[in-house]
Amino acid sequence: MASRTPSAAPKSEEQRSGAERAPRRRLSVDERREQLIAVALELFSAHPPDEVSIDDIAAAAGASRPLVYHYFPGKQALYEESLRRAGQELAGRFEEPADGPLSERLYRVMGRYLEYVESHAAGFTALLRGGSVVSGPGADAVIDQVRRAAGEQILLHLAVPDPSPALRRTVRAWIANAEISSLDWLGERAVPREELQLQLVQELVVSLAVTAAREPALAAHLAEYWAAETPEGPTGRLLHDFTALLATPGLGDTLLRLATG
Amino acid sequence: MASRTPSAAPKSEEQRSGAERAPRRRLSVDERREQLIAVALELFSAHPPDEVSIDDIAAAAGASRPLVYHYFPGKQALYEESLRRAGQELAGRFEEPADGPLSERLYRVMGRYLEYVESHAAGFTALLRGGSVVSGPGADAVIDQVRRAAGEQILLHLAVPDPSPALRRTVRAWIANAEISSLDWLGERAVPREELQLQLVQELVVSLAVTAAREPALAAHLAEYWAAETPEGPTGRLLHDFTALLATPGLGDTLLRLATG
Repeated sequence: MASRTPSAAPKSEEQRSGAERAPRRRLSVDERREQLIAVALELFSAHPPDEVSIDDIAAAAGASRPLVYHYFPGKQALYEESLRRAGQELAGRFEEPADGPLSERLYRVMGRYLEYVESHAAGFTALLRGGSVVSGPGADAVIDQVRRAAGEQILLHLAVPDPSPALRRTVRAWIANAEISSLDWLGERAVPREELQLQLVQELVVSLAVTAAREPALAAHLAEYWAAETPEGPTGRLLHDFTALLATPGLGDTLLRLATG
Repeated sequence: MASRTPSAAPKSEEQRSGAERAPRRRLSVDERREQLIAVALELFSAHPPDEVSIDDIAAAAGASRPLVYHYFPGKQALYEESLRRAGQELAGRFEEPADGPLSERLYRVMGRYLEYVESHAAGFTALLRGGSVVSGPGADAVIDQVRRAAGEQILLHLAVPDPSPALRRTVRAWIANAEISSLDWLGERAVPREELQLQLVQELVVSLAVTAAREPALAAHLAEYWAAETPEGPTGRLLHDFTALLATPGLGDTLLRLATG
């Protein structure tokens, strides 16, 4: 008999349950559980959770309603489990080899992040907008876990020996920026994805510069990173654009007056 | 007889209810309602909502439990009403005369904002951390209303004739930054309030610069504002710090190479 909470370890042929009535082919207990989660994640990605029923999940999985209840106590449990999977996947997208210019690494990370967000738009929006009857502590825990994982990955790339509270705040605030900007973008699609991807990376670069302006050790650390940047990367393009900005009538004089005042 | 939902208009002597047993002095229906909201707001500011009971509110108001229920159907209604008041107060703190350098106006606004956040720390934290049993659509609506009001005030000060989607996103993302940074700060108090106040304003200044680097019309508009900035204000201090940053070994050469590459 299949357990209500089968272990994650693969089961042998002998351990497989014959209880479920698989309509197309016989799935093992673990295969069936994974299939239900995958189907639920797909539905919860495309629709707000309140609009997805156990019947929808059963139909999409080619399974019966009792079979779904055999694996999960209810919609809430399936929602939370599919959220956890989505959170793991999303957190994983922040992992990036520590090679090459920093802003180009971050650009690749944000490309993967926005790609995931776009392909799970309805679920992402419902999750972060909150107010759903199935949101709650389980969903909040997943959101927190992704935020923490993302923050740790960014700090890992910065490789600052002992990050100050101000630097940690900068990173957390930027992650909030990425979240709210993604939500905004999903709602309006006012700019191409690559444009938002570039802007977010450049916003982190300038926020780090603001923090470094107060922390000489961080400034020295970042200067080494920036030395590896290329004119074509996000940092180079930003500096190029800032230089062009200086052609704005009066701006050069203003900046010079303020900087030396 | 006092209505369960007394109108906001002041009542005449004749309309006053004698039903409530005010222990110290007889309050009018409206006075009593306002007093209960004020007491509730004070308690919900200092404690997470789950830790505040109707009995606590009654005791702090010098009123009986039935009297509180005479005015409000339950804790949820009192919580939401006190939240609405807090939201109005907080949104009002973003209002600022359109006089003087822009970054100094924003600095004053953020001073008032952080002051309110600090004096309502537990309630602010519980509200934004979510997961409380009394959070829900009512609380979400108040949060949204404050965010919208704050965003409108910032855009009002920027006075850009037709704000682009990118500019609107920049402002919304910065408001998210202010929220998450405030939460962080309340939890750790790692820097003095004035330091966070300054950093937040400077982060908006650089985010606007990143957006302006793509929008010549916005750049021209901001250049006029920046012309009114002083070396002592947040923008001037940031430019001064950035200039000092250029003394970081190797950084000047790197920036020059990237900007002209």
